[in-house]
Amino acid sequence: MTEQELKEQILAAVLKAKETNPLTPSITNTVTINFVANAQLAVGGSAAMIYLPDEAETLASIGSSFYINMGTLLPVYAETLPRVIRVLKDNNKPWVLDPVGIGAGALRRSLLLSMKECPPSVIRGNASEIIALANLWELDSGITRDGVRGVDATDSVESARKAAVAVARFTQGSVSISGEEDLVTDGKYTVILKGGSAMCTKITGAGCSLGGVTAVYAAVASPFVAGLTASAVYNIASENAQKNCSGPASFQVAFLDNLYSITKEQVDNSEICVETEEL
Amino acid sequence: MTEQELKEQILAAVLKAKETNPLTPSITNTVTINFVANAQLAVGGSAAMIYLPDEAETLASIGSSFYINMGTLLPVYAETLPRVIRVLKDNNKPWVLDPVGIGAGALRRSLLLSMKECPPSVIRGNASEIIALANLWELDSGITRDGVRGVDATDSVESARKAAVAVARFTQGSVSISGEEDLVTDGKYTVILKGGSAMCTKITGAGCSLGGVTAVYAAVASPFVAGLTASAVYNIASENAQKNCSGPASFQVAFLDNLYSITKEQVDNSEICVETEEL
Amino acid sequence: MTEQELKEQILAAVLKAKETNPLTPSITNTVTINFVANAQLAVGGSAAMIYLPDEAETLASIGSSFYINMGTLLPVYAETLPRVIRVLKDNNKPWVLDPVGIGAGALRRSLLLSMKECPPSVIRGNASEIIALANLWELDSGITRDGVRGVDATDSVESARKAAVAVARFTQGSVSISGEEDLVTDGKYTVILKGGSAMCTKITGAGCSLGGVTAVYAAVASPFVAGLTASAVYNIASENAQKNCSGPASFQVAFLDNLYSITKEQVDNSEICVETEEL
Repeated sequence: MTEQELKEQILAAVLKAKETNPLTPSITNTVTINFVANAQLAVGGSAAMIYLPDEAETLASIGSSFYINMGTLLPVYAETLPRVIRVLKDNNKPWVLDPVGIGAGALRRSLLLSMKECPPSVIRGNASEIIALANLWELDSGITRDGVRGVDATDSVESARKAAVAVARFTQGSVSISGEEDLVTDGKYTVILKGGSAMCTKITGAGCSLGGVTAVYAAVASPFVAGLTASAVYNIASENAQKNCSGPASFQVAFLDNLYSITKEQVDNSEICVETEEL
Repeated sequence: MTEQELKEQILAAVLKAKETNPLTPSITNTVTINFVANAQLAVGGSAAMIYLPDEAETLASIGSSFYINMGTLLPVYAETLPRVIRVLKDNNKPWVLDPVGIGAGALRRSLLLSMKECPPSVIRGNASEIIALANLWELDSGITRDGVRGVDATDSVESARKAAVAVARFTQGSVSISGEEDLVTDGKYTVILKGGSAMCTKITGAGCSLGGVTAVYAAVASPFVAGLTASAVYNIASENAQKNCSGPASFQVAFLDNLYSITKEQVDNSEICVETEEL
Repeated sequence: MTEQELKEQILAAVLKAKETNPLTPSITNTVTINFVANAQLAVGGSAAMIYLPDEAETLASIGSSFYINMGTLLPVYAETLPRVIRVLKDNNKPWVLDPVGIGAGALRRSLLLSMKECPPSVIRGNASEIIALANLWELDSGITRDGVRGVDATDSVESARKAAVAVARFTQGSVSISGEEDLVTDGKYTVILKGGSAMCTKITGAGCSLGGVTAVYAAVASPFVAGLTASAVYNIASENAQKNCSGPASFQVAFLDNLYSITKEQVDNSEICVETEEL
């Protein structure tokens, strides 16, 4: 797998999402729910957010993929999440998990633990969250403590590489870690994506919306390519946005605008680096 | 009823909302709740969003009008919505319904069904939602299948005209359909409003916030004029916003800015076309 | 206490928040939750929003301060709020209350009443809310009627001065009132802050996010200085934003951008006026 081959697959996913307008329902946190929906629309998806169990089941069965972000759990999720995950599994639908806030609360812990039985196609998180998830699932992360404080990463992307590879091998899907450099792995190949903007850490929801966009691409590409495509377009859009902003809010506006108009040339010029994992 | 007469009524509603700052509480979805509130403020309303039954009753009784958007139902709505609709009816308050997502879930279906007994003053939806609502209420829509997929319309505005007229005659209020052209009817007169921007489909909440703004105008005008006024100012603001944007997020910013500063000249120059429905 | 001394303390709080990135969890309304989080990030805080009781307890115990905004109550808050307030008291953590919507509903009333036993470090509200809270707590507000209609103030800041001083003396913390001029008092000193922008009343969440930002500063300064610092930077950022906006939405973008880049010179040039309260 060469860098050029991957770029072709990324570009194919970018175009296919715009052509097919896949319905990508989400259960996501109330803080960034608007940003997630607008980012999904910007890349060509159709968004629909849900709380209730039967509505989630219906949308999971008619949607092309699904996004579950664990940000702000509500009581109804104790019923909604197990039911929707069951429908996703039974219908073999690709879905993306963002294990935000892993470590806080009994419901969150029990839901994330139960997902080991019905694993997501793509897991997207920051380094601390991926390490914590590997530990929760008793996979070999190479790091035994839990590094989560609130919702921000306190570990480097590279330090979570072993955890990401372990989780991807277990789920037979892919794992994406966002950070100064991004890492996407399917357990066999690991891709490092450079670029992006530090302004992403000055707004809320860069990670959440990246998960939602990954779910749009998971409707039109493999879990691995979906993770790569989302990270690649986020790096492109955020780099360009940084050039045209005067602070975090104008950055977010410019970011969504740029996300909406990703070009082939931008994908061709992006920096990605493929490495092979030793088994 | 001439085009010029309608424009005078639209302009009167625009001005009266700014002068009287009507309190327009809403029960609306969490995805676009901020956009709805800011759009209501932009046209002169005072916004207040509620979830709990007794608070909704209080605000329904002191508010000048009310907005109910069915976007993201939560369990508490099973109690809140029937109680608030009862208070709205008992106090003879105008209210606007946006039947988003009609077709998904048992609670949504039962709530929308029950509204046939206490119907809203204005119903605003996309073409597919209006057809589906007419069918749910067993009115003659001319189209028997349900065309809803997620939250986006899959039917043309014109194809939903018969359903809109049937619903408006039943409720003795008005029905607004948003689309490439907008349609507003009170069952006797149907008005087609041209203009607007396709960028409205690239952001989430154009429809939701249109419903919220319609509710502000329903506090100061008849259901028919409220529907017309909201569609007219949305077309004006979105057309102008499109000229000054570089993507969906800057479009939304420019849209709200333009909504805040609608002028008499803009209303005079807008394209509206009145047609009479045969009884 | 001179104006210059206060400005030095304000500047110290501005810098310390940026240096220490304090974790400031919030329970806040769904309308402006995104604005609150982005404003907290803009001034250097780390945001985390919560609904569930055990998660709130965890975050209250690891956070540096906490923000409770009563905007859109949900049923789960009946359990979450008493538990989190207890943890905040037991751990002696500074927290900020925004008593939005005081007067609507039984749960809201009973929660606000119970806070008399475990009072917040800072209370931030508009004039009508502070008067209503003083009345609810049976403190001498000088005004016995309840002036709240929806979420907007109907009283002047000056008319709520007596209520603010009474509440601050009772809580032994500080009280901030936002309005055309802002007032911050610890019951002994009262500071009037001029400046700001009327555009703050044209967007939703200026007050909510001010409360969230006050909580960030409460992690690095006394309740009194936290209230002052938040009001001062809000006045500076909104004044500058008004110069570069063409309506409410571009105002909000410019406001957050300016909030992110407050300078020493701006603080030095801001207008604040210290007065001493008679005991």
